[in-house]
Amino acid sequence: MTVTIIGLGLIGGSFALALKDRGLADRIVGVDTDPAHADKALALGLVDAIQPVGDAVAESDLIVLAIPVNAIPLLAVQILNRIDRQIVMDMGSTKEELCEVIEQHARRGRFVATHPMWGTEYSGPEAAVHGAFTGRSVVICQRELSDPDAVERVEAIYRAIGMPVIEMDPEEHDLHAAYVSHISQVTSYALALTVLEKEREDETIFALAGGGFESTVRLAKSSGEMWIPILLKNKYNVLDVLREHIHQLQVMRRMIERDDTEGLQATIRKANSIRRIIR
Amino acid sequence: MTVTIIGLGLIGGSFALALKDRGLADRIVGVDTDPAHADKALALGLVDAIQPVGDAVAESDLIVLAIPVNAIPLLAVQILNRIDRQIVMDMGSTKEELCEVIEQHARRGRFVATHPMWGTEYSGPEAAVHGAFTGRSVVICQRELSDPDAVERVEAIYRAIGMPVIEMDPEEHDLHAAYVSHISQVTSYALALTVLEKEREDETIFALAGGGFESTVRLAKSSGEMWIPILLKNKYNVLDVLREHIHQLQVMRRMIERDDTEGLQATIRKANSIRRIIR
Repeated sequence: MTVTIIGLGLIGGSFALALKDRGLADRIVGVDTDPAHADKALALGLVDAIQPVGDAVAESDLIVLAIPVNAIPLLAVQILNRIDRQIVMDMGSTKEELCEVIEQHARRGRFVATHPMWGTEYSGPEAAVHGAFTGRSVVICQRELSDPDAVERVEAIYRAIGMPVIEMDPEEHDLHAAYVSHISQVTSYALALTVLEKEREDETIFALAGGGFESTVRLAKSSGEMWIPILLKNKYNVLDVLREHIHQLQVMRRMIERDDTEGLQATIRKANSIRRIIR
Repeated sequence: MTVTIIGLGLIGGSFALALKDRGLADRIVGVDTDPAHADKALALGLVDAIQPVGDAVAESDLIVLAIPVNAIPLLAVQILNRIDRQIVMDMGSTKEELCEVIEQHARRGRFVATHPMWGTEYSGPEAAVHGAFTGRSVVICQRELSDPDAVERVEAIYRAIGMPVIEMDPEEHDLHAAYVSHISQVTSYALALTVLEKEREDETIFALAGGGFESTVRLAKSSGEMWIPILLKNKYNVLDVLREHIHQLQVMRRMIERDDTEGLQATIRKANSIRRIIR
């Protein structure tokens, strides 16, 4: 199988490695609007060749969109316009707008809308790693609108990489992603900013930074190029979750202000039940 | 050297293991007000014996307070009242009140106020691990008020465990700890609560929880027994930092609301500079 990967950053690059490592692709063609990214991906061996998008699509069985989410819907339509038998899939973190845009396309059946739940705080081809995705879930949206051969092929690839497949409608996906992914990103940026602002008056503020701080601000290293489109495309869910999160912080702040030990005990005991969810 | 460790939880237990692993103590006596903790610590081999606090202190060269910070100042005075040649140290996360309480004690010189910058989200004797502390910094406050032999002995122990020693006054310590440790704890609890609240109406909200979510909410598993005293003892610093953090969240929220891509770019670029600080 020949695969074209459009967007050779963290996600596209790591997916290329996963396909190669599992013997799922005979040939991987890379496409990237940034020539430096393209060169780097080729030099790193993530892809076998770099080609213009038209040539790459024409010779491929599977076309993978691994670009920022604001660019996916339009490119999805453009690719669907020029394919026939091929399968097209995306790996983006928001799904509602994309699914709406392609819904009435004559070749909607050739498209599989996916979101593999994996990422790191790094970006670009150099950030691509072996072993990515394995053990994490992948969401497929509007499975029933994809042709059976297309969706089965894509699911087989994800399963071969070791990813359990979850079906979800696009609205549900975007809501859930806001709660368990997008919000963590915003709080991490805000936490980094809080301490960096303090550093302007107190240069040694980071002397004590340890493991707890690192794990909560790690995501603040993530690129805006990837995340701003996600936050804006999932705007209404993100705004709702942020409002709730700020409310929780204000409630805890008032409890601390009033030395409300009992309130804090009840609150923290409740928060502790996150142990059910994460290891 | 015989060492008494008072408080056989995560910190005291891990310190006992570090002392043994490095051959820094011939005998470790454990003291804990919770008999179940004491039995467990003995069964796990963290300590060689369990004794009442009076007997333990009498036979020891070094007495280590590894209990919640609200209990440290009073016990520190009580221990100082009954020792002569021994060294007493604490490992608590707040320092201002403790240092104030013991400042005029006739045997202040025998006390060394320390805060090793290490912890995990787990608690109790079972949470004690080998290899803790190594590579992290330890703060010593009011070094000049400790007798030279006492502070040198304690520093030698921390250095042998592989911890760089930082000197800081208590006020500075508590301010810095609020920024790079205590605030992460509150945001993590609040983030867990935000998603757990949502789970009441949407049971599958965690289906997509991945690595980013886990790293930002990991600390929400931490026990209130340890953290409530820290948040209340460091109340004014924690309230200040929380106010700033909530402000940063509100600024980012407004930018998302207004589709302010440029503002978000500038904000995230600034947050990205946390790369200077954490690996």
